Amino acid sequence: MTAAADVRLDDLPLRADLRGKSPYGAPQLDVEVRLNTNENPYPPPPELVADIAAACEEAARELHRYPDRDAVALREDLAAYLSRQTGVELGVGNLWAANGSNEILQQLLQTFGGPGRTALGFVPSYSMHPILSAGTQTEFVPAPRRDDFSIDVEAAVATLRDRAPDITFVTSPNNPTGQSIAPEDLARLVDAAPGMVIVDEAYAEFAEATGRPSATTLLATHGHKLVVSRTMSKAFAFAGGRLGYLAAAPAVVDALQLVRLPYHLSVLAQASARAALRHADATLGSVAVLAAERDRVSAELDAAGYDVVHSDANFVLFGRFADAGRAWKGFLERGVLIRDVGIPERLRVTIGTPEENDAFLQVATDLATKELL
Amino acid sequence: MTAAADVRLDDLPLRADLRGKSPYGAPQLDVEVRLNTNENPYPPPPELVADIAAACEEAARELHRYPDRDAVALREDLAAYLSRQTGVELGVGNLWAANGSNEILQQLLQTFGGPGRTALGFVPSYSMHPILSAGTQTEFVPAPRRDDFSIDVEAAVATLRDRAPDITFVTSPNNPTGQSIAPEDLARLVDAAPGMVIVDEAYAEFAEATGRPSATTLLATHGHKLVVSRTMSKAFAFAGGRLGYLAAAPAVVDALQLVRLPYHLSVLAQASARAALRHADATLGSVAVLAAERDRVSAELDAAGYDVVHSDANFVLFGRFADAGRAWKGFLERGVLIRDVGIPERLRVTIGTPEENDAFLQVATDLATKELL
Repeated sequence: MTAAADVRLDDLPLRADLRGKSPYGAPQLDVEVRLNTNENPYPPPPELVADIAAACEEAARELHRYPDRDAVALREDLAAYLSRQTGVELGVGNLWAANGSNEILQQLLQTFGGPGRTALGFVPSYSMHPILSAGTQTEFVPAPRRDDFSIDVEAAVATLRDRAPDITFVTSPNNPTGQSIAPEDLARLVDAAPGMVIVDEAYAEFAEATGRPSATTLLATHGHKLVVSRTMSKAFAFAGGRLGYLAAAPAVVDALQLVRLPYHLSVLAQASARAALRHADATLGSVAVLAAERDRVSAELDAAGYDVVHSDANFVLFGRFADAGRAWKGFLERGVLIRDVGIPERLRVTIGTPEENDAFLQVATDLATKELL
Repeated sequence: MTAAADVRLDDLPLRADLRGKSPYGAPQLDVEVRLNTNENPYPPPPELVADIAAACEEAARELHRYPDRDAVALREDLAAYLSRQTGVELGVGNLWAANGSNEILQQLLQTFGGPGRTALGFVPSYSMHPILSAGTQTEFVPAPRRDDFSIDVEAAVATLRDRAPDITFVTSPNNPTGQSIAPEDLARLVDAAPGMVIVDEAYAEFAEATGRPSATTLLATHGHKLVVSRTMSKAFAFAGGRLGYLAAAPAVVDALQLVRLPYHLSVLAQASARAALRHADATLGSVAVLAAERDRVSAELDAAGYDVVHSDANFVLFGRFADAGRAWKGFLERGVLIRDVGIPERLRVTIGTPEENDAFLQVATDLATKELL
């Protein structure tokens, strides 16, 4: 049933820089408590499910036609949502959307990066930034964070002047460590950066819930260099729908049209995302719950003897383990899937429902006594 | 309502090769008879619309979770369909899917092309091939077709040996000219090509309806170099759903995992495409109708004095016009939107419903007497 099964990977004329690499992706294991990919644990409420079904049914009647290439109606709805959420007045021209924020970031790298150009990121951070950079032949330059995973702004300004990257990634809240950057610190980085600064705000709603503003507030003053990337995967509980977006100067959105694949967003993606945006208030109700649970989990981990990194997102980085890989297996063997993000001595747990968090905390407490720390 | 509207495109640090370019895409005009983007004119039947709505409703209940990154169930269904359609036994390992065949081609270029590598195509052909090549910094090498737009196989073999491209594009049926390549000719090209050969079969079902086999039939013998790219946009009347796929050796599918964006295909895309595949027999009923209409339109254009290129697809290239751009406007002014594909003296018309084709033929007959030829 498998044609050409005898052809081996080594027989193929792959690009040299791909040889020996492995695909990105967390293990998709069938475990009872899955707290490894920063998903929102709350499924869409029944009225949203019904609205999405109705929106898809209507869209399906015209499936033989290509979608609106510019996704204008969706971008209008995103602009209205983000204006409301951040207090910044945004129009359709400020917004762009794609299949997940990975595609948003890929398009930005194709536009402002590429061969002979560099992208700098403050590591450890989202592991897709170097992968997407490599995928567009953009040289990735890692700049270290402090030992507590915050950005040393003085040092960062000096590094940006010295290395002069074409693109600077700032993840806020930072994945997988959790801290946000304050707008005044971010403004100093944008001022110092010679090229574009991409603020990856995949987890912004969780920070906004506790009073930390979006980088969108800097667009009016720094729009010639600033792009704010966001996603509906996390706070909107829309990970399966794959909808990323950005806010930027309209000229940036114009520039992205030069590299985007035509008709990249299906009518079903556009229609279902619009349905989800209509239910934003209900869905985002989970954000405050998750933020409170995050603080409870952090406090209980601390009480159990763990070292906990402060988080503004829906996950918590904690440790320190003598052997993070062995500890990860310890959690898995007890039915709790968390994430080994490759930071020595630390693991990352996604905040789930109170029941999932209790299950996780029970295992964490057990393991804390087992000489793993 | 528009932040940073004062930033100009020229203020941005765009890649040099993007400066001065325009976005790809046919004009999306609101005209009564739209025969410009090779869409299937028949909307999905009500039972398929209902099935898609039900599939999306079920998928929506788990929208807070990431999709199956490997889209295994969809690829199994695609393998079953393509095995049935082509008579070649294919398994899930032979199939890969993405958001439209543009994304399929982009992933192939990222894997086998890139900086320092070349992609050769026989022009005129699908205009996205050079654009996608440029987007991945792959040098595009155009090789001419004969004056009648067929491939001169002897000359092509010599060119492939001489230019030694890393990737060779063969579009069959060729867009925008309509001819298929015979498997024995294709085999000679694959034998001569030193790198990968991508056969772009976006319109294959229309050719298969009149007995022309898919390049998939060569996979068993040429799978170390051959990739067959297809789409559900045309025959499946699924342009709005954005579902492209490929058939290749499993090793090629493995290689693509190194460049694909994680979770690139939404649960809604996967579920709705599977619904469409369940209705393949009904949907593909339109293919025979359209093939017959294509032959009628070709014959009537010929009778009206036009020069008509033989087509195996759902469009027809015709002329010759003294000024194709002026003729295109003449059709548009009479309520018929067709496509100026940039080939001197020629225009391309998509085959629509019999009523749309009648409207088009009426205008074509009128214009033939107006000294446009």
